[in-house]
Amino acid sequence: MAIEGMELDCLQGVRVVDFTQFEAGPSCTEALAWLGAEVVKIENPKTGDPGRRLRPGHPDDDPWYFHQFNANKKSLTLNLKAPRGLEIVKELLKKADVTVENMAPGTIERLGLGYNVVKELNPGIIYCQVKGFGEGSPYEKNLAFDMIAQAAGGPISVTGYGDRPPVKPGPSFGDTGTGMLMAISILAALRQRDRTGKGRRLQVAMQDAMVHYMRVPFSRTQQSGKPQLRDGSSRSSTALAPSALYPCKPGGPNDYVYVFTSRANPEHWTRLLKVIGREDLIGDPRYDTGPARGQHAAEVDEIIAAWTRQHTKQEAMKIIGEAGVPAGAVYDTLELINDPSLAERGIMQDVEHPTTGHYKMPAWPVRFDGAPAKVKPSPLLGQHNTEVLGQWLGIGADEVAALRTEGII
Amino acid sequence: MAIEGMELDCLQGVRVVDFTQFEAGPSCTEALAWLGAEVVKIENPKTGDPGRRLRPGHPDDDPWYFHQFNANKKSLTLNLKAPRGLEIVKELLKKADVTVENMAPGTIERLGLGYNVVKELNPGIIYCQVKGFGEGSPYEKNLAFDMIAQAAGGPISVTGYGDRPPVKPGPSFGDTGTGMLMAISILAALRQRDRTGKGRRLQVAMQDAMVHYMRVPFSRTQQSGKPQLRDGSSRSSTALAPSALYPCKPGGPNDYVYVFTSRANPEHWTRLLKVIGREDLIGDPRYDTGPARGQHAAEVDEIIAAWTRQHTKQEAMKIIGEAGVPAGAVYDTLELINDPSLAERGIMQDVEHPTTGHYKMPAWPVRFDGAPAKVKPSPLLGQHNTEVLGQWLGIGADEVAALRTEGII
Repeated sequence: MAIEGMELDCLQGVRVVDFTQFEAGPSCTEALAWLGAEVVKIENPKTGDPGRRLRPGHPDDDPWYFHQFNANKKSLTLNLKAPRGLEIVKELLKKADVTVENMAPGTIERLGLGYNVVKELNPGIIYCQVKGFGEGSPYEKNLAFDMIAQAAGGPISVTGYGDRPPVKPGPSFGDTGTGMLMAISILAALRQRDRTGKGRRLQVAMQDAMVHYMRVPFSRTQQSGKPQLRDGSSRSSTALAPSALYPCKPGGPNDYVYVFTSRANPEHWTRLLKVIGREDLIGDPRYDTGPARGQHAAEVDEIIAAWTRQHTKQEAMKIIGEAGVPAGAVYDTLELINDPSLAERGIMQDVEHPTTGHYKMPAWPVRFDGAPAKVKPSPLLGQHNTEVLGQWLGIGADEVAALRTEGII
Repeated sequence: MAIEGMELDCLQGVRVVDFTQFEAGPSCTEALAWLGAEVVKIENPKTGDPGRRLRPGHPDDDPWYFHQFNANKKSLTLNLKAPRGLEIVKELLKKADVTVENMAPGTIERLGLGYNVVKELNPGIIYCQVKGFGEGSPYEKNLAFDMIAQAAGGPISVTGYGDRPPVKPGPSFGDTGTGMLMAISILAALRQRDRTGKGRRLQVAMQDAMVHYMRVPFSRTQQSGKPQLRDGSSRSSTALAPSALYPCKPGGPNDYVYVFTSRANPEHWTRLLKVIGREDLIGDPRYDTGPARGQHAAEVDEIIAAWTRQHTKQEAMKIIGEAGVPAGAVYDTLELINDPSLAERGIMQDVEHPTTGHYKMPAWPVRFDGAPAKVKPSPLLGQHNTEVLGQWLGIGADEVAALRTEGII
């Protein structure tokens, strides 16, 4: 029996004017939308958020990226360079609890919607900015995308093999990882605003956000005094063996299982030996402690790989995991999209979109009283023009039609 | 003039009973502490959170890991297996707004502190659980650490070179990335609790949290129907060239700069050609569009690398970035710890710890009205026993002394 997504109303009544684009900003406002806020995405009337990739004939004209980061939001088109468009957005900002933008440095100010302007319109607003680099940084005017943040904030330096150039972690942690920090900050600031009536200016830089996620590598540098180097998939401590990916059958590009025995629990190693049929090695001084295994890491790896090569990654994860040893198969994107348990538990949900049709998409993965938030399709460009202008500002259908004719919306 | 950290009081009055250990849980409660919540870490009286690594003589006896994830918290030791210890923690839970645990599956229930018990004690509490795998998953009883989540949730599959086994992204996104999603959910649930008086049970699995961060790779699979494969540091789309790491002088392990030209802005490419002195190639049909560059990716890479090899990564980032093209030097942990701008902007703060002494540590990177939260040192084991037992429960100094003698605290 599958768990259905639930309409969460935790943030009921919270109004967000959302100027964000691409991912770092949209992932933040989407989290708020999933949790029940009314998020109105302000988009230019021609092509909208560039993340929509509405470029017919262009090789990457696809809707998938946009769907991922804009579920459960409303779309209002507005030409912010037209005086009437700017006037309308200012009226919306007066009624909002939160506004978020992640445009290129200086853009929101040039539009006439900088912090000092908006604070005057609405002293209680939480005004949020996501940039590549922090105000006051030598790079504060520079552009950034996910990979730039993952370079300048450290993640790339500790990822990859020691004998090759570093590699970018594949997921867009630089974007969504930043958006999540802003979402936490918004909700904390909102709580205080409810008490005091006073708004806040929140700013986060993607480089700085990456530093937040780099704290384990920093802790190694604090101990060693040296830069933390990359070393494949192992945790780079000789006291941590085994801690590696092991090959599984049939030998495809992701047929690996991660096996780890914790320093905090010496039993993991003996459990592992039992489950792989190497009870003969229990108590063997070459392998009996973390440091000893670290000194014989290549032998330890071969002992484990000799077993994993005889099993698929799924079998290996099941057998080793059930024995009480941390183990994880390397699942790829297609396996995860089709994973029955993710679907049954509502983590991967079915979405029906008016133009894209049916697809599966991850939900907000935290379950509230057993159920995750329900994923609704991302909005069509301008889909909620009439609704939002009517409900927020009392603008009638005739005026909406006129605004459309004039190219304001 | 450096920006000092500020004591943030956004979450003033929010009381958290914190049963978390290692990182996924502690990163969540630490975020709440930085934003002003009173977070009381419940630790066993002997060694405390295993993340403390209090094992004298053991090769990884170091305080650095613990400091990173437990700043600004209070520590209360309690023997939860003693009846009086359990009684005390139940009294604390009655006064709490939030409780969070990330013990091995089944442990909190065996302690007699499962959701059904705690809900009876305090119907308004936000009861939060962080596990490796979701309730109802075939792996729900399995243990997990960061690398297991990064395997089973997808990040490892898309990280590394195509011609080698995958690699684990170096930062512990599996832990802290999960903790951030729970923190967002807690603050949303708290907002609703304030209105309704009703608490919530929140649950997040580290595997499921990784799926949340995998949405760009999922979007590529939605387009292609195939698993997204890893391909070094490039975004794997032929429409995205250049998008790679380029070598810089003097050729050390992290002497690289990421250079990216956005599909959304064709000017990036012409700006890049100008700044590297290759105006001669502007308008050259081999390189003039994203798809054309994709077809000549090796040539494009060499055009750029010929320039970057003549510069340090810092110079390259500065020169290319200032020209309006996204560029990021690959900074390592030591460079970041010593980075003057991170220090000046309060992102990397000085901490004075009673036993460890002086060190630098990243703060919560979101700035509130211009300043980040102030980092306070992580607590000594049991440092706040008298304070918390007195302030929360009215237990006097004599009784605290007796509890200590009896081994309860």
